[in-house]
Amino acid sequence: MSAYIGVDIGGTNIVCGLLDDQLNLLRKTKKPTGASNGADYVLRLIASMIDELLEREKLTRVDVAAVGMGNPGFVDPVRGVSLSSANLKWENVPVSDLLGGLLGGIPVFIDNDVRMYTYGEAARGAGRGYDHVMGVTLGTGIAAAMVGRGELYYGSGFLAGELGHVPLEGENALCGCGMRGCLETIASATGIARIARERLEQGEASVLQQWFPGDGRKDVTAADVSRAYDEGDALAVDVLRFVGRHLARGLAWAITLWSPDVVVIGGGAANAGERLLAPMREALMPLILPMYRGVAIKLAEMNDDAGVVGSAAFAKARAGA
Amino acid sequence: MSAYIGVDIGGTNIVCGLLDDQLNLLRKTKKPTGASNGADYVLRLIASMIDELLEREKLTRVDVAAVGMGNPGFVDPVRGVSLSSANLKWENVPVSDLLGGLLGGIPVFIDNDVRMYTYGEAARGAGRGYDHVMGVTLGTGIAAAMVGRGELYYGSGFLAGELGHVPLEGENALCGCGMRGCLETIASATGIARIARERLEQGEASVLQQWFPGDGRKDVTAADVSRAYDEGDALAVDVLRFVGRHLARGLAWAITLWSPDVVVIGGGAANAGERLLAPMREALMPLILPMYRGVAIKLAEMNDDAGVVGSAAFAKARAGA
Repeated sequence: MSAYIGVDIGGTNIVCGLLDDQLNLLRKTKKPTGASNGADYVLRLIASMIDELLEREKLTRVDVAAVGMGNPGFVDPVRGVSLSSANLKWENVPVSDLLGGLLGGIPVFIDNDVRMYTYGEAARGAGRGYDHVMGVTLGTGIAAAMVGRGELYYGSGFLAGELGHVPLEGENALCGCGMRGCLETIASATGIARIARERLEQGEASVLQQWFPGDGRKDVTAADVSRAYDEGDALAVDVLRFVGRHLARGLAWAITLWSPDVVVIGGGAANAGERLLAPMREALMPLILPMYRGVAIKLAEMNDDAGVVGSAAFAKARAGA
Repeated sequence: MSAYIGVDIGGTNIVCGLLDDQLNLLRKTKKPTGASNGADYVLRLIASMIDELLEREKLTRVDVAAVGMGNPGFVDPVRGVSLSSANLKWENVPVSDLLGGLLGGIPVFIDNDVRMYTYGEAARGAGRGYDHVMGVTLGTGIAAAMVGRGELYYGSGFLAGELGHVPLEGENALCGCGMRGCLETIASATGIARIARERLEQGEASVLQQWFPGDGRKDVTAADVSRAYDEGDALAVDVLRFVGRHLARGLAWAITLWSPDVVVIGGGAANAGERLLAPMREALMPLILPMYRGVAIKLAEMNDDAGVVGSAAFAKARAGA
């Protein structure tokens, strides 16, 4: 058989999946990345995870047509090089060559994680059946990617789509990138938690004050804000409305410049679901021309598997299969 | 010889150009559009202008490999249909079929005017030598287009790039599109003139008060604001700084989402040149990630010819020549 491997690597964990030639996920495995051990260690670990997956399905490397891998950070997908990854502490690692070598010459194709996620949702998830799919991940940060009829949009230096890093008028929180008021400081899991905590510190009434008394409030997460929302908590409702309205400002620009048929929203903060999407949609529609208002806004369907399946689908397309 | 025709049609004038197969502009001609006479009249006029150009160069229709035409409004470049043009009052006009028929079967390729302008500047103007070229026109409105290695970016419905129509936080002027505070209400020739007039009405001191006494101020144009700037007029300096700062907000999103190597700015308001671009650049750099700050920001080089040359270059590429 012709099998494909999809690899989703993050700062914390690596997930490897084995897929058949119809891109059905047959089996997957997960291990801690151990990034502090260096790129060589991590790539050898991935090779061993792939060999283990194959063994369990009674396959060998000969059965694998291609490997796809989604990396955090900046990637040159043409040369297969991880240009820079803050999470992995990688700089200019020739991933395709190194991992391909460890696997005895199997072709390895890489791209950044939000592109692989978007590719996966477009091929097999919430973007299935749409020609122009925009993917957005709301995790610790925000990123976006665009696939038009199966082709990713890259721009110069493969740098297009850093939706999280445009400062918003009137906002001032320090962003990890060094700028202030970036969309990512608000419309992300980190942003939701930060805004809730700041308002709790100012003494605003909320069920979260009871759940996290005193200094405990520093542990409040985006998921806690969703739980409070479900109790009808006014602060939680207001925080998610505020975040939704700001997310709408960024999406308005992305929809206007990219013109997608569907926006697929994933990542940890997307677990807030309609609590966040309902106020976002309400704020979005008056910010885009009527001709864009038919755009579908959907939650990701594949969740944890989008990166693995997207990477495998990307590898299959790049391998010309 | 293999000649190409480029046509640039606006609500006021039609410009037709004849180009050789190296896309050198040999001759051009200009006539009033007469749009009120209907699409049939306009297309017949274009056909006659083309025949006249050929005759003057002692060529015939047989020498023409393809015709390209840039239309205002929304265009389906695949089917060659002008979907909707407010300026021409056209709805679903099958331009390629009709004009091709009038010209005895010469292939006719159309697209919207900002895409043809961008294509022309990328091929032969200020974008020459760059892989990823973003074109922006600041005329009565704003529009943008993106060409990556000779390929235009379209998005769903060919609707990508309406940079002028995202409302800006804190702005409220009514836009022609029906929304309020769109970038186009500020960063356009119309916007510059409007903002200057409003401030003159509020009695602000300016040399423009002397040039346009009393009700005369309603005739102030963007060009007058530039003239006043050159006299060191504080109001004019401040208006162009305000407009530049808002233009920077829109360009920050476009640069972040599209990742161009160069932004080429044209259209009537671009005549303000560095008076507008200097404050725009100053405002832009803190709004984009360091990795985008190498982007070149240039004025269009081809001015009136970009549409004609771009249309011909587009036709040459589409005809597969």
